Amino acid sequence: MSASPTAPGAARARSWWGWGYSDAHPDDAECLALGSLLPGTLAAPLPVPRVADLRIGRPAVSAPDSLAHLVSEDPGTRAAHAMGKAYRDVIRALRGRPGRIPDLVARPRNEQDVADLLEWAGGPGVAVIPFGGGSSVVGGVEYRGDAHRAVLSLDLTAMDRILEIDTTSRAARIQAGALGPVLEEQLRPHGLTLRHFPQSFEFSTLGGWLATRAGGHFATGPTHIDDFVQSMHVVTPAAAGSSWRLPGSGAGPSPDRLFLGSEGTLGVITEAWMRLQERPRHKASASVAFSDFRRALDAVRSLAQSDLAPANCRLLDPGEAALSGASRDGSSVLVLGFESATAPVDDRLAIALELARSHGGRGPAEPAQGHGAEADTAVDAWRSAFLRMPYLRDGLARMGAVVETFETAATWDRIPALIDAVRTEVGAAAAKATGHTATVNCRLTHVYPDGAAPYFTVVVGGRPGDEVAIWDDVKAVAGDVLHRHRATITHHHAVGRDHRPGYDLQRPEPFALALRATKAALDPHGILNPGVLLD
Amino acid sequence: MSASPTAPGAARARSWWGWGYSDAHPDDAECLALGSLLPGTLAAPLPVPRVADLRIGRPAVSAPDSLAHLVSEDPGTRAAHAMGKAYRDVIRALRGRPGRIPDLVARPRNEQDVADLLEWAGGPGVAVIPFGGGSSVVGGVEYRGDAHRAVLSLDLTAMDRILEIDTTSRAARIQAGALGPVLEEQLRPHGLTLRHFPQSFEFSTLGGWLATRAGGHFATGPTHIDDFVQSMHVVTPAAAGSSWRLPGSGAGPSPDRLFLGSEGTLGVITEAWMRLQERPRHKASASVAFSDFRRALDAVRSLAQSDLAPANCRLLDPGEAALSGASRDGSSVLVLGFESATAPVDDRLAIALELARSHGGRGPAEPAQGHGAEADTAVDAWRSAFLRMPYLRDGLARMGAVVETFETAATWDRIPALIDAVRTEVGAAAAKATGHTATVNCRLTHVYPDGAAPYFTVVVGGRPGDEVAIWDDVKAVAGDVLHRHRATITHHHAVGRDHRPGYDLQRPEPFALALRATKAALDPHGILNPGVLLD
Repeated sequence: MSASPTAPGAARARSWWGWGYSDAHPDDAECLALGSLLPGTLAAPLPVPRVADLRIGRPAVSAPDSLAHLVSEDPGTRAAHAMGKAYRDVIRALRGRPGRIPDLVARPRNEQDVADLLEWAGGPGVAVIPFGGGSSVVGGVEYRGDAHRAVLSLDLTAMDRILEIDTTSRAARIQAGALGPVLEEQLRPHGLTLRHFPQSFEFSTLGGWLATRAGGHFATGPTHIDDFVQSMHVVTPAAAGSSWRLPGSGAGPSPDRLFLGSEGTLGVITEAWMRLQERPRHKASASVAFSDFRRALDAVRSLAQSDLAPANCRLLDPGEAALSGASRDGSSVLVLGFESATAPVDDRLAIALELARSHGGRGPAEPAQGHGAEADTAVDAWRSAFLRMPYLRDGLARMGAVVETFETAATWDRIPALIDAVRTEVGAAAAKATGHTATVNCRLTHVYPDGAAPYFTVVVGGRPGDEVAIWDDVKAVAGDVLHRHRATITHHHAVGRDHRPGYDLQRPEPFALALRATKAALDPHGILNPGVLLD
Repeated sequence: MSASPTAPGAARARSWWGWGYSDAHPDDAECLALGSLLPGTLAAPLPVPRVADLRIGRPAVSAPDSLAHLVSEDPGTRAAHAMGKAYRDVIRALRGRPGRIPDLVARPRNEQDVADLLEWAGGPGVAVIPFGGGSSVVGGVEYRGDAHRAVLSLDLTAMDRILEIDTTSRAARIQAGALGPVLEEQLRPHGLTLRHFPQSFEFSTLGGWLATRAGGHFATGPTHIDDFVQSMHVVTPAAAGSSWRLPGSGAGPSPDRLFLGSEGTLGVITEAWMRLQERPRHKASASVAFSDFRRALDAVRSLAQSDLAPANCRLLDPGEAALSGASRDGSSVLVLGFESATAPVDDRLAIALELARSHGGRGPAEPAQGHGAEADTAVDAWRSAFLRMPYLRDGLARMGAVVETFETAATWDRIPALIDAVRTEVGAAAAKATGHTATVNCRLTHVYPDGAAPYFTVVVGGRPGDEVAIWDDVKAVAGDVLHRHRATITHHHAVGRDHRPGYDLQRPEPFALALRATKAALDPHGILNPGVLLD
């Protein structure tokens, strides 16, 4: 993942039903042009849905007077907090059948507000759904079921300040509700950066990254947000507290690691001390083409097992390379990037290119020094497409196409068979469910010495009106393939509600017992994000 | 930590009372020579204690017939499992007052044996103390109190095999009871290594490293054993299970991280898939001297915040440098080492040396290329002293000297004041308790972009017979200084029983609740390593 930061978007309106900014969505003409690239005939674009067309009832509960100033009952606000931004969510909004609209949306200003809201909600049994940027693609921020009297969406984005910076230790205390650009904007004057740039960067928060163990900027080495946590403050219904700011510790199991990935089920992460970095001064990037995807996989494995530590090492299969414009001749493309704040990286890029060529890689024509023009063509094409992709997905959804992206990770010994099986089996399932030929593309987003994280995009013309059922079918087959290949149900998208079946199969029983016991101890009324991770 | 592997020691007798091999302990003459270097008069060396002189009663319970073949009641075996190897343990053995001798010592051969032993122990309420190499310096492997009917030491060292190697993903499935040399010996034919070389390498096991979050070979970057875990198998009284082999995952909180650092209180780690590395082909090392320790700290911080990633970056203060022979002129010494399996590292060493010199570092006289002769003098002196140190400690203990080593970690902004406070306050406490001048030396063992791990050695002539009380006094003051400076009670030695007061103050309340709930769920009879981490 490597979106560049852009200016914070306070002035631009966010879409309540689809990805990102309302004004960035493709118009009907662009949708139709896009649709003509897909096999099968797509429907005319559905109109962009309006909140006014939803039937939104009165809230089932009201907040007490002492908390009323934090809480909104506004229908538009409530609708915008009903779901995340999965394809499934977009389709439901387009069809006028969104997930359950929360009764209330609260915007706490500090830890005490969070604690007060949790305490109140425990009484009447109000479900509390922590909400950052709302970019979940796994059903992580909606309510399903009817076991609770009401639903409160706990929107953390009013808590978006950097409270302290320690330039000596290169760390900052940051409130959990800071969106990516809001956070980086506050760091910039200090010459420091978190350098965590997921695809959702503009529309996701530090707290969301922490709660879901988001995948970071770097293709190799420490890259999950987990690795950059110095300490966290967590507010649970039973207790609140901070871990100490420590660069490393061996004092018992890591307290932070239990809350990283807890997806709002154990407590609310309200702030964290995060490790920062200097901005890189030296950069070099280049792309290499491969005729044979298997040999490209070997090249990437060799790079991952070297200690060259490329910042970017993204392998696009032929379909993915064509889609993004990085290649048009059926080649796979490896996008390589090195960066450093300390020393030039051209020599490392040269060694990496030599290594890639020894596995059949072609190019760049001239050894890339800094930003070679040729190298940048593929690199830039990829980067632009990457950021535009979620908007295009929503355009396709308006025409009834089914679009799913899912990601995983597995050890190298399993990677080739896993990728083949996903292409074959998920492609067949999508074709069977729709009657159209399905496209299944793959890229590697992160690589490790012992394995890799493949990311899959499935695109297929659908049957308008049946998109959710088709998506559920495809998703079930995908989950089954991952399970049979012992590939994780998620590398960085999180579990949410959509990945529960796979997660339940994957989680070792001793940890399942521990998690249930912890949930009962910290959230005795079972109000926090019910249905996520456990029942 | 960076001991080189040596041949496995099957043929050499281990000391039941002191560090390591019996035949490596200093004799009386060496003890006296060593003692003459200390201020104050030391007592004549106590005789090496004999098991035959201990009063060891009959076991309070017997194992059932079905498990009898796994269990020993031999007094020598039981005595050797009564304690770890802290100074406090050595003194108690020398004085004929060891900790509680376990009733039984079991040596399971596989997971089923472990499960059977735990199931049996739960019935009569027998405390089970998991035991690897027995090198704990924090009271991690002894029983204190009298709440259990009997005590079983669960010695895992019969489970010492590498069961599978995946050379494609560079990982191996390793039984938890493998001692360092036993493990590396089995990896060597495959050209791979775990490269985890704590000071205790010869006398500690994979399971012990995992259960205590041991500190690894590398001074920078991923170095805790945690970072090299691909998956683990854990047997608890309530359930057993394995995490999946994954290079990375975002599926819920990490299941492994809850058991890493659990110190035998939640379950028994029986095996793990561990990430391996190639042996380095390129090495370069050198040492730099500093007149000013504060400036040396700045140099090390700059190095840690660069992306040069030195494998070794150990700063010795003047006392530590003199003790190890790395310097005799009152300088602090920075020992730097780079290594790579991929590319030469001389250029990185050169940049690092330049950076060190810009902070006032002197030397080496010639830019070190590979293993320069001058560089090696300090490096080798340090390495030899490092491995010999625990044996010398036991020699000093025989003469009534008080020797304590403790380690911590803190963010850079706190490091200078922390080190000053330990020197001053712990030194004063040791002097007050003994009436002698105390030596307090410091080195940095691991460094991070956001902080460092200082390691302290306190040596002072004691009052024969009062060593344990003096040690307890000094330890309490040390714990208090660490707490006031928000420095962790342990960076890699673990909590055990000796660090409980500090750990209890440090652990955030939400995690304390989670840990207690987890303990109750996984170990409902409270038999696993009682008193460690929680009550």
